[in-house]
Amino acid sequence: MDVNMILYAVPLMGVLALIFTYVKSAWVGKQEVGNERMAGIAKAISDGAMAFLRAEYKILAIFVVIVAILLALSGASEENSSALVGLSFIVGAFCSALAGFIGMRVATKANVRTTNAARHGLGKALEIAFTGGSVMGMGVVGLGILGLGTLLLIYSNMYGFEGQAAAVKVINVVTGFSFGASSIALFARVGGGIYTKAADVGADLVGKVEAGIPEDHPLNPATIADNVGDNVGDVAGMGADLFESYVGAIVGTMVLGTAFMAGSIAEGGSFSEDGFNGLSAVLLPLVLGGVGILTSIIGTFFVRVKEGGNPQKALNGGAIGSSVVMVILSYFIITWMLPSSFSYEDVLYGGKERTITSLGIFIATIVGLVAGTAIGFITEYYTGTGKKPVMKIVRQSSTGAATNIIAGLSVGMMSTAWPVLILGASIMISFACGGLYGIAIAAVGMLANTGIQLAVDAYGPISDNAGGIAQMADLPKEVRQRTDKLDAVGNTTAAIGKGFAIGSAALTALALFGAFMQVTGLTKIDISQAHVITGLFVGAMLPFLFSAMAMQSVGKAAMAMIEEVRRQFASIPALKAALEVMKRNGEKEMNEWSQADQDTFNAAEGKAEYAKCVEISTKAAVKEMVLPGLMAVLVPVIVGFAPKVLGINTGENVLMGPEMLGGLLAGVTVSGVLMAIFQANAGGAWDNAKKMFEEGVEINGKTYYKGSEPHKAAVVGDTVGDPFKDTSGPSINILIKLMSVVSLVLASLMI
Amino acid sequence: MDVNMILYAVPLMGVLALIFTYVKSAWVGKQEVGNERMAGIAKAISDGAMAFLRAEYKILAIFVVIVAILLALSGASEENSSALVGLSFIVGAFCSALAGFIGMRVATKANVRTTNAARHGLGKALEIAFTGGSVMGMGVVGLGILGLGTLLLIYSNMYGFEGQAAAVKVINVVTGFSFGASSIALFARVGGGIYTKAADVGADLVGKVEAGIPEDHPLNPATIADNVGDNVGDVAGMGADLFESYVGAIVGTMVLGTAFMAGSIAEGGSFSEDGFNGLSAVLLPLVLGGVGILTSIIGTFFVRVKEGGNPQKALNGGAIGSSVVMVILSYFIITWMLPSSFSYEDVLYGGKERTITSLGIFIATIVGLVAGTAIGFITEYYTGTGKKPVMKIVRQSSTGAATNIIAGLSVGMMSTAWPVLILGASIMISFACGGLYGIAIAAVGMLANTGIQLAVDAYGPISDNAGGIAQMADLPKEVRQRTDKLDAVGNTTAAIGKGFAIGSAALTALALFGAFMQVTGLTKIDISQAHVITGLFVGAMLPFLFSAMAMQSVGKAAMAMIEEVRRQFASIPALKAALEVMKRNGEKEMNEWSQADQDTFNAAEGKAEYAKCVEISTKAAVKEMVLPGLMAVLVPVIVGFAPKVLGINTGENVLMGPEMLGGLLAGVTVSGVLMAIFQANAGGAWDNAKKMFEEGVEINGKTYYKGSEPHKAAVVGDTVGDPFKDTSGPSINILIKLMSVVSLVLASLMI
Repeated sequence: MDVNMILYAVPLMGVLALIFTYVKSAWVGKQEVGNERMAGIAKAISDGAMAFLRAEYKILAIFVVIVAILLALSGASEENSSALVGLSFIVGAFCSALAGFIGMRVATKANVRTTNAARHGLGKALEIAFTGGSVMGMGVVGLGILGLGTLLLIYSNMYGFEGQAAAVKVINVVTGFSFGASSIALFARVGGGIYTKAADVGADLVGKVEAGIPEDHPLNPATIADNVGDNVGDVAGMGADLFESYVGAIVGTMVLGTAFMAGSIAEGGSFSEDGFNGLSAVLLPLVLGGVGILTSIIGTFFVRVKEGGNPQKALNGGAIGSSVVMVILSYFIITWMLPSSFSYEDVLYGGKERTITSLGIFIATIVGLVAGTAIGFITEYYTGTGKKPVMKIVRQSSTGAATNIIAGLSVGMMSTAWPVLILGASIMISFACGGLYGIAIAAVGMLANTGIQLAVDAYGPISDNAGGIAQMADLPKEVRQRTDKLDAVGNTTAAIGKGFAIGSAALTALALFGAFMQVTGLTKIDISQAHVITGLFVGAMLPFLFSAMAMQSVGKAAMAMIEEVRRQFASIPALKAALEVMKRNGEKEMNEWSQADQDTFNAAEGKAEYAKCVEISTKAAVKEMVLPGLMAVLVPVIVGFAPKVLGINTGENVLMGPEMLGGLLAGVTVSGVLMAIFQANAGGAWDNAKKMFEEGVEINGKTYYKGSEPHKAAVVGDTVGDPFKDTSGPSINILIKLMSVVSLVLASLMI
Repeated sequence: MDVNMILYAVPLMGVLALIFTYVKSAWVGKQEVGNERMAGIAKAISDGAMAFLRAEYKILAIFVVIVAILLALSGASEENSSALVGLSFIVGAFCSALAGFIGMRVATKANVRTTNAARHGLGKALEIAFTGGSVMGMGVVGLGILGLGTLLLIYSNMYGFEGQAAAVKVINVVTGFSFGASSIALFARVGGGIYTKAADVGADLVGKVEAGIPEDHPLNPATIADNVGDNVGDVAGMGADLFESYVGAIVGTMVLGTAFMAGSIAEGGSFSEDGFNGLSAVLLPLVLGGVGILTSIIGTFFVRVKEGGNPQKALNGGAIGSSVVMVILSYFIITWMLPSSFSYEDVLYGGKERTITSLGIFIATIVGLVAGTAIGFITEYYTGTGKKPVMKIVRQSSTGAATNIIAGLSVGMMSTAWPVLILGASIMISFACGGLYGIAIAAVGMLANTGIQLAVDAYGPISDNAGGIAQMADLPKEVRQRTDKLDAVGNTTAAIGKGFAIGSAALTALALFGAFMQVTGLTKIDISQAHVITGLFVGAMLPFLFSAMAMQSVGKAAMAMIEEVRRQFASIPALKAALEVMKRNGEKEMNEWSQADQDTFNAAEGKAEYAKCVEISTKAAVKEMVLPGLMAVLVPVIVGFAPKVLGINTGENVLMGPEMLGGLLAGVTVSGVLMAIFQANAGGAWDNAKKMFEEGVEINGKTYYKGSEPHKAAVVGDTVGDPFKDTSGPSINILIKLMSVVSLVLASLMI
């Protein structure tokens, strides 16, 4: 087996994933759409989603071009290779954007087809929704592996791949890909998050609360925007998030792997004919990623459910099945690619000799997998319906909104404890197994199954959307019940997905952090130095600032949406009349209304100007994503270069900028992980507390339902939680990786 | 001038402060109490407050004795001196508790006398309230300086004070004092915070919201507990907080100062006859503290207001006046005690030679003062009535409680940015001026005026209480208006006080952190090491966990209070009848009621069982303070000793425990500062947004008042903000110092 074979085989795995994507996407497209009304609604959602992508990508294209030019001019790598960093950046951005596009496209096709299938039964509906999700999942990993693999192949042909110097140069140029992916991811997550919550809050507050219309009702002008938002935020946003984690973890590990290329001494086994030269450690994460594509594809075949069967089992079967296969394959790959033991001089730790075993590296990947799963189960505990923390929120809702909020905040804060302890343990174990490389490979292990993991994640919003369409199209109740069932079973798996997203973000950031140190030649980042502790303070503050900005953006956008919905209710005569009729008939079922009332009500259908609301969300999201995005990119640049530019960097303090930046990155990572967990879990717990009231819940011997005072209190909590869990919380995951990768790309310039 | 003179002069300054305290306290006691009803209410409050202190101190006494014994047995210092660490701990705990007792005692005397004075005019009322506050302020600094100074005098006579070894030993033993102060402070803050908010929430939710009784109304059984809470939380809690900051900053600086005692080379000027030997740098913070007592006493004489004059000006005059005097005196003290320039080997930084100038140290103290003031003004901006951030919350209240909460959370998060940048800048500047000693002396500079600062801070709750008594005693409206005016003018000064509390906590923690490194002999704390970054993660998580625990405790205690108030309303016939009469007469003024109704209502007076509510708050607070308190003390012990106990600490990794603990302390400090600012400012902003509605505020051309829907939304925000700003937020300030000081005291054992 030689290096070239691997360099060619890896992109082929990416191609395989994309073929899978194409075939499955075509299959989804061939399914029946259902009646005309459903088709119309689906088209409105699809058009809205694409309109948002167009508007978003227009802005991002400008950003990408400017940054690419700056990178090319910056001299971030020697001579002509700076231009290649810019090129990698563009390719990374393009792949990320394309992955978002593919995912959104298939999700907006799969939603209505899932609805239609749900008219007949559960099995087919699950199949369509999950296939839609798997297109997203495989698109993400396929484009990631194909893009990275192809760039690596091209650059290694240009510069060669033998010897540490060449490998470092090649991988340095490849880091641009990760930067591109991260930038798009941040904008997509922030923009998508603002979009979906502005629409959601607007639809809820005016539609549900003020006008008393049920959720997803066609009378509500914001309802299409709300459904578009689910795709924009949950599908495209999450895809971009995992795309960048995936790419970042691989790239970070590759950079750290180059440390083994100088004079390591191996014992037992050899990868290439020339014996171990460290290169296989560089390629390992890519190979794991490629193999992960295979296991994910295998996993999708486990997801089958017969009529009357348990969809939860089907999904778990897919995810767990492919994990098990992956673990087994990882063992053989790692022991094949790495010598059983090798020693090298760890320049990061004062040239200390460190010995690493292939078994140790295997353990590190398992540690990643176990930690991700464990964090997922903790997430499920703190946010799950009927579990103690959510029940606490439920009980505290009986004394009003204020106590509900306090309970939710404290559950969210409390929920940070275990994940952090698990994360800490896995950092220490994987470091003991393989130094910083061990931490990085743990992140890769966590993410190797991204394909199937993301398929399960994206399945959730597709089912949710399917339910929305059923409601809007006025389909029989059992259809909505089926889609609700589909949606509900995805929750545990989605919680585990969140655990992976947060855990991998932390480990990936640490991997990139280590890579940054290696490139700048920092041998320590000493927090007892004033500039480092200052960096730590400022870095830790950024997730707070970032969250505040995101929440304010949601607030602003939601206000605009609220005003538009109110305007439509006040100025469109048919809507106005229908609302009056609704109010007059109060709690009565519609078939008990007078015929005239029913006619008035039906005449209003389709009169709401959905497109206006879609436009408002789109404009607001695109506008508001710019500032937080720029902040994330610019702060590391300013901190890293300021001492150099200001001329403070003289003599022994030459590393003051990078060392301060190191403190900043540590601060962002640590505080970001905490804020992300806190916000995501508080939001999730509030959401489920509210849902429990919708099904009826007992507090002190009395059962409360929808519309009761405690339920109203719970709705307040849910609304507060919305931007937490869908905008600022998940965006922070990306923030910490993006800031690390920006630092890494520019690292060589800072020295 | 010789060292002995200083060692004797410093405790004398403490005695001076205590004489001042005694005289002023006696003066307050001599003022008239007012009518019998007022005296009765005041007695109930005073009894309640003392009952709480008794219950609290009973538990704390057990804790103190156990910890003192453990310290004595631990060998935290060589031979018999371990016992002295335990002794110092007891003295520190005793002084802190005594300071709380003195403050509470005078505050519960001053409140009713202020009310009585306010019946006649503003000037005398201000004088009484401020004098009450100044007793608290001087009590704190007096006991701090006297305690520290006396211990130092005794120990230096025992061990000598010449040469680094002796000085290190003496100061090592003295650190126990700081530990004692911090422990009591944490319990007092947490317990007081839980007490006050449980009573407040209970009084508000059942009394105001459910039963519709106005605030501070005698019908409400929780009203006395509520007023007791203001004293317990705002007076005793804040006093304990600043007492430990004050002591911690001085002790930390003294430890760091011992670094100069080995072979520093001085130029220009000499302190003692033998020339500069570093000892004067050790004594400098004590001298600054002692002189601060003088300037604070001088400052109190500036606080005078004539009838019709502006009380705000009077308070500012006192605070600013004494600051200016302090700055001037500091210059002379520092240039007198330190040589104009001296060089020493900075063992913390690899033995690098560092040169420090007396001018640099002076600048560092100014930096502390300026940073504290600046953070105070930013606090005022983010929480001040009518300022942009509060107006934003006001506007977002018009769409309901959810948007009010989102706005408040985002204001709180946003408000962390500037204080952190200022803190960062002052860390870097003061470090450049004097290394870690520079950072420590900046904290001392910030706190030198604690006496007067605390006087102004404590003046606020005394005025607030005075207003409450006026209401309960049914005094004419203008009395309450006068006390409200007194209360309002304290707000800006109080905001600045909060800025000092947070800023000084951060710098003090860093000073103690540096001292900890020095004692353990750590030369770096490298965050790229897995165990350090793990420490950082876990440390950063603790303020989240701690806040969650505090909020849950408030929730639990409030629930118990709510149930008790409901029980009394349902089961005490006179109360029940009065409530019905109130409801029946709705909005009517009382003199328009029928005579029978008025009689029924008046018959209910004093029928509420206040003592039961006081008891519930007391029990809950004392019970709930234990767990978070123990956590703060035990975590550093576990992390610091675990590697040693587990036997991991072999060979080169001998410092693994302390280094990981260093990471943990940095994490606690950074995340703690952010969480403290976030919570304090969010709470403050919500509070003032609510207050703006009570005075009437315009949103989009319409004016909203008390009772309007937006006002109700703002009340929800205020209730959420209560535990934020009065329980968890300020407790975190103490948490970060306590964990640092525990580490410092045990540092020598960890090596």
